[in-house]
Amino acid sequence: MSKNLTTRSEDYSKWYNELVVKADLAENSGVRGCMVIKPYGYAIWEKMQAELDRMFKETGHQNAYFPLFVPKSMFEAEEKNAEGFAKECAVVTHYRLKNDPDRPGKLMVDPNAKLEEELIVRPTSEAIIWSTYKGWVQSYRDLPLLINQWANVVRWEMRTRLFLRTAEFLWQEGHTAHATRQEAIEESERMMNVYADFAQNFMAIPVVKGLKTETERFAGAEETYCIEALMQDGKALQAGTSHFLGQNFAQAFDVKFANAEGKQEYVWGTSWGVSTRLMGALVMTHSDDQGLVLPPNLAPIQVVIVPIYKTDEQLNAISDAVAVLTTDLKKLGVTVKFDNRTTQKPGFKFAEWELKGVPVRIAVGPKDLENGTFEVARRDTLTKETKPSDGIAVYIKELLDQIQIDLFEKALEYRNTHVTEVNDFEEFKKVLEEKGGFISAHWDGTAETEEKIKDLTKATIRCIPLDAKEEAGTCVFTGNPSTKRALFAKAY
Amino acid sequence: MSKNLTTRSEDYSKWYNELVVKADLAENSGVRGCMVIKPYGYAIWEKMQAELDRMFKETGHQNAYFPLFVPKSMFEAEEKNAEGFAKECAVVTHYRLKNDPDRPGKLMVDPNAKLEEELIVRPTSEAIIWSTYKGWVQSYRDLPLLINQWANVVRWEMRTRLFLRTAEFLWQEGHTAHATRQEAIEESERMMNVYADFAQNFMAIPVVKGLKTETERFAGAEETYCIEALMQDGKALQAGTSHFLGQNFAQAFDVKFANAEGKQEYVWGTSWGVSTRLMGALVMTHSDDQGLVLPPNLAPIQVVIVPIYKTDEQLNAISDAVAVLTTDLKKLGVTVKFDNRTTQKPGFKFAEWELKGVPVRIAVGPKDLENGTFEVARRDTLTKETKPSDGIAVYIKELLDQIQIDLFEKALEYRNTHVTEVNDFEEFKKVLEEKGGFISAHWDGTAETEEKIKDLTKATIRCIPLDAKEEAGTCVFTGNPSTKRALFAKAY
Repeated sequence: MSKNLTTRSEDYSKWYNELVVKADLAENSGVRGCMVIKPYGYAIWEKMQAELDRMFKETGHQNAYFPLFVPKSMFEAEEKNAEGFAKECAVVTHYRLKNDPDRPGKLMVDPNAKLEEELIVRPTSEAIIWSTYKGWVQSYRDLPLLINQWANVVRWEMRTRLFLRTAEFLWQEGHTAHATRQEAIEESERMMNVYADFAQNFMAIPVVKGLKTETERFAGAEETYCIEALMQDGKALQAGTSHFLGQNFAQAFDVKFANAEGKQEYVWGTSWGVSTRLMGALVMTHSDDQGLVLPPNLAPIQVVIVPIYKTDEQLNAISDAVAVLTTDLKKLGVTVKFDNRTTQKPGFKFAEWELKGVPVRIAVGPKDLENGTFEVARRDTLTKETKPSDGIAVYIKELLDQIQIDLFEKALEYRNTHVTEVNDFEEFKKVLEEKGGFISAHWDGTAETEEKIKDLTKATIRCIPLDAKEEAGTCVFTGNPSTKRALFAKAY
Repeated sequence: MSKNLTTRSEDYSKWYNELVVKADLAENSGVRGCMVIKPYGYAIWEKMQAELDRMFKETGHQNAYFPLFVPKSMFEAEEKNAEGFAKECAVVTHYRLKNDPDRPGKLMVDPNAKLEEELIVRPTSEAIIWSTYKGWVQSYRDLPLLINQWANVVRWEMRTRLFLRTAEFLWQEGHTAHATRQEAIEESERMMNVYADFAQNFMAIPVVKGLKTETERFAGAEETYCIEALMQDGKALQAGTSHFLGQNFAQAFDVKFANAEGKQEYVWGTSWGVSTRLMGALVMTHSDDQGLVLPPNLAPIQVVIVPIYKTDEQLNAISDAVAVLTTDLKKLGVTVKFDNRTTQKPGFKFAEWELKGVPVRIAVGPKDLENGTFEVARRDTLTKETKPSDGIAVYIKELLDQIQIDLFEKALEYRNTHVTEVNDFEEFKKVLEEKGGFISAHWDGTAETEEKIKDLTKATIRCIPLDAKEEAGTCVFTGNPSTKRALFAKAY
């Protein structure tokens, strides 16, 4: 197969768009801004879901499901949250279509079926969930509520890109309620750490843990924790957020509990989410000009075996050897596919599985059978070696573990060499233009300066890293005093 | 805990509504017709999902995800399907809210943000999926497409009931495309059989497999296969459907393929689905006046252990014995909960776990420790026995298997004694009123007769069973000739 993939250096953005489509991850649909997640892409998302779900349950959370729609009056109850999402809401106003008298066979909205109150398609579910929690919490014994939902949400974005920004996307949203401020803060931090653990150890994506500035904070939150990743083009990508909501939603929806002394108090809340956006992060962290590169943990197919043969007799002999290897690999928990299609040549198959990011490719021909060997190719390094068939299954299993580690190390190396400390604004602009990546710089803590820097450079404050040292400094833009460096970058 | 549950004989419908809420399965939300699925209910649904998903994948299907919205012009492309769902559609007409100048702090729909084309919130996804399949199918080599989606759908029902009929519900919808009519029919039948297998062997719900009449067929299908279950009140419940779509959607969306001879042909389609309605079927097949009865396969907690004690010392000794038992049970794959809450008495706990349908309850007190025994209670039969602690884990594991079988047998016995053959209309009405259940009767095959019987009795034709014998008969209503009996019932 011919890939005809734009290279990253030619046009990174085009490379991404083409790769997502050609590797069969997703495509644009006939509905403005909405994507179709194709089976291969969805299989990767399912692996993310399974692991996250396991981690959520391990930390005491349960799944539930809340309505897709939020009545307008409920939506507007928490004012900041409502204001934050009002400009990008899909609104249901009618509940019936009827035959269009002017266009035979066509339908029109039935003007007699107007809703008394408009329904907002959830852009996020705090409002509907906190209106429900009101009925679930009476006493401190009912707390904490530790609930997660897997769902679709809709935000009417004007400029969309597959996975990165779509009008509808899939995500999970955790919503918890606690008796004390301290517990809620601990929960927000716990889930940020779960996300960081997942990104780094499951997706092989290094992330910086930090706090958002007030400008970048979730609408309705008191504090937003985030994990920030760095893509290969030097732009940052917010990979997950965890919000400490204070008592904002409890007050808006009147969710109180009787504490151990019988006194009524407002509940403390958190919410946290990651979405199909992680698919974009995955592509832009590991992939190359040949196509997708998948960490073994996320690969729907971890090993593909391609037979090299001329005669049916050769294919039969190869198939016998492959059957043994396949059984051995499956016993070790490795997902393996024998690509014995007769309609395609080996070169086509090699290119196709490279494009689709299968971590290990094994090729086997008559010579290999004679010699008792297999040819083993790594997708990440594009290297090949010939290995004896004795002990090959265990070797492959260990190789997959090694690839998982190597991908993280490679991404970490890139990220670490793309965090630049700068101390004056000219240098800031120069580094941003010439090198990209994260810029670690002092900032005076005002939204005004943040805004001005953004207007001049398109760089935003991605976060104040949690591990930022206290140090006396001066703001890179105003020269005003500062005690911590913030992390700036252009971002997706 | 006091259950205060209406009994089934008092008011079956009220019993159901109360049970669903009190057993923490679901509740009505602040959004008209939409439910909240609570964690305990959702955990049961997750078990259904996991098993169905496994069965779908085993039969060669892959998951994918398609947009929530369907543009009106796409929605109306397959006319019968559009007509069937037009009367109950949620319609998105705007994409933004703005501040309401007349109501400070409140929002209104922004009249300047009207969509050029209205979007229908999917009531089912044939339209959006077939519009996508057009781009995926060129040649017979691209077929079959075997795809499933887990999703939410919306049908604007006027009278709703938790799980049974809600404006939004969760489901899976399979959508497949095939090169031949025969293959598509085989797929429809295969998935009906998967559903029947799932209902009977996993949910312990006996079902009749059959074909819908033209009146009851899915809008846009050539044939609808179904599985029909019988609830304890003698009403039927459609538990799953599988549709042979012929070439209807392929023609509406122009989905053609080049066959092996290079000739263009329309693709053949199927679709099939089950929904959170199955939760209703589960409740109404097995539960009793004490609350929920769950088949072990679906129970989030299979075994609950309640300590009976007066002193902390006793509780400690019990806890040690329970720790051993719990470890043994977990090794056998049994889900177990030790209810060591100090805030509730054993009687309260017994009632609570009965209400929630936990299949096996183990009670253990100081006497049991002395005697080396446990008290084992079955939820389905409400019987208790004292068993030696030696070999107890294996005994419990086998007991759970037995309960799963017994629940099916009990439901089957009920169903079998509630299928009545009748040969005249007076008897038809009498059986329907006095006994309920399925009525097996000859029918002349016309929609007119079907409609009249429905008007007079509220009974509909649930299906023509696939195993119905060919036999000469006369229609129970018109006396016209008939060759097969149909199955009538009042239905949910």
